[in-house]
Amino acid sequence: MYRIGIDIGATNMRVGLFDPTDQLVAREQSHTEATSGATQALEKLVRMIEAVDPERLASGIGIGAPGPLDVDNGIILDAPNLPGWHGLRIRDELESCVGKAVFLMNDAKVAALAEAKIGAGAGYSSVQYITVSTGVGGGLVCDGEVFAGSHQHASELGNMIVDVSLKNGTLEDLCSGTTLKRESRVLFGKDKTAADLFMHYDAYHPEARRAIARWLQHFGAALTSIIQVIDPEVFVLGGAVILHNPWLVEELKTVVTQRVYGTMKETIQLKVASLGDNAGLYGAAMLVK
Amino acid sequence: MYRIGIDIGATNMRVGLFDPTDQLVAREQSHTEATSGATQALEKLVRMIEAVDPERLASGIGIGAPGPLDVDNGIILDAPNLPGWHGLRIRDELESCVGKAVFLMNDAKVAALAEAKIGAGAGYSSVQYITVSTGVGGGLVCDGEVFAGSHQHASELGNMIVDVSLKNGTLEDLCSGTTLKRESRVLFGKDKTAADLFMHYDAYHPEARRAIARWLQHFGAALTSIIQVIDPEVFVLGGAVILHNPWLVEELKTVVTQRVYGTMKETIQLKVASLGDNAGLYGAAMLVK
Repeated sequence: MYRIGIDIGATNMRVGLFDPTDQLVAREQSHTEATSGATQALEKLVRMIEAVDPERLASGIGIGAPGPLDVDNGIILDAPNLPGWHGLRIRDELESCVGKAVFLMNDAKVAALAEAKIGAGAGYSSVQYITVSTGVGGGLVCDGEVFAGSHQHASELGNMIVDVSLKNGTLEDLCSGTTLKRESRVLFGKDKTAADLFMHYDAYHPEARRAIARWLQHFGAALTSIIQVIDPEVFVLGGAVILHNPWLVEELKTVVTQRVYGTMKETIQLKVASLGDNAGLYGAAMLVK
Repeated sequence: MYRIGIDIGATNMRVGLFDPTDQLVAREQSHTEATSGATQALEKLVRMIEAVDPERLASGIGIGAPGPLDVDNGIILDAPNLPGWHGLRIRDELESCVGKAVFLMNDAKVAALAEAKIGAGAGYSSVQYITVSTGVGGGLVCDGEVFAGSHQHASELGNMIVDVSLKNGTLEDLCSGTTLKRESRVLFGKDKTAADLFMHYDAYHPEARRAIARWLQHFGAALTSIIQVIDPEVFVLGGAVILHNPWLVEELKTVVTQRVYGTMKETIQLKVASLGDNAGLYGAAMLVK
């Protein structure tokens, strides 16, 4: 069965055609232009679908999109990074345009599905994927299925409380790429990025060392709480912050090992995601039944 | 099918016989005397089993015991409240004494199973039970099955990190009955209990108000994080601290509603446990297959 996967991000939209052996055989990428409105975006998506699948081989289309979503009804609700798309009934609209079944899921959850099935989490029974880039998101995959929760809100990890004493003490407040960029700018100048912070860390700049040490403590605390709640077999960590600094994962393991109960220290497994930018595209195609 | 449930606590052991309609038809209770050693405890358990089931009707025995446990091998590892029992192979020992299949599970998880199946969580697809007494424990039940996690450590909620800025910032450090008792003693004298703290709260004592307000913020933060990780359909809260002060549950709902993402505020459900002291006994019997 041929399938189409679509990965909608704030910056880029990607459309891929997968053959019956799950190989990516055609791929299109384009700017999202999220402010230009839903009609134009849909027209562009339809053109991209025709470009990757001119012979109309695909049985269906899976979409990973930033939340919050109404998954049951295939609607993008009020995703902050897609301002022109609020309320877009993307499933029904696209189904009526292309005449194929369309499936919608949160972008981090489809990436989790791909990493769990064919990426760094392959072979593990339960995989907690976490992505750290502009924000913090995640997806839990148990026995090959996304654990969605009772209201499709499972693994909305960015809003976990890490430091209750702070006004802004959530995992996303403390550990997102946006936060690292802000800290970099405070320390090193207003044109700096998170990458500059890590560069100064490598050069043993004391403030940069402290900032990353705090990041490790905060992120490690969230990982500890996740272990105490669901005890996943493995964590797979991805997103730009992790993929550009994969050594963070070993450091996180040290922090978590110090924090969990004694009998749990030996079973902690943390891995770096292995599918890179394509995780969302692969996972979206996996939604097609 | 008749079943026997055993609830082993630091203070008391309870043994109950359930008839084929799941009614509790006989019940024995005795002091645990956890320091007297495993041999004496086993002998006492065997006598209690004979007392509730003299005609040997039961097909099997389920045990809820404080952890950490080696569930696969039926061993009590190093439960801090059962000092004489460390390493006790309770499943094999009891099976050889009574000639029936024995099943072992963490005490909070069996209570969760009972609350989910016949208690306050009945009818919900996923139930996060949390007990707050001497310590803080829990159990997650999805579609009638305990979600144990990859290493049987799911819902060891006491070690969730609530305030990373504190040396002792776990949920149990901040919210257990032991902590409330300690705060009561600091404020009101060394013979005081958690109940005295709540009494002074009712009398609008400002320090008592602040202590309970802190407890609500801390516990609410943990509930928020649990929602973000697994999005359970309902929380069922039990244990002495909650059962003696059930109004806390409505207050917690207010705190959690302020903290979760916008689209999740309307779906939060928190309930008070309904099986009281017998939850562990009922749930233990449910382990018998």
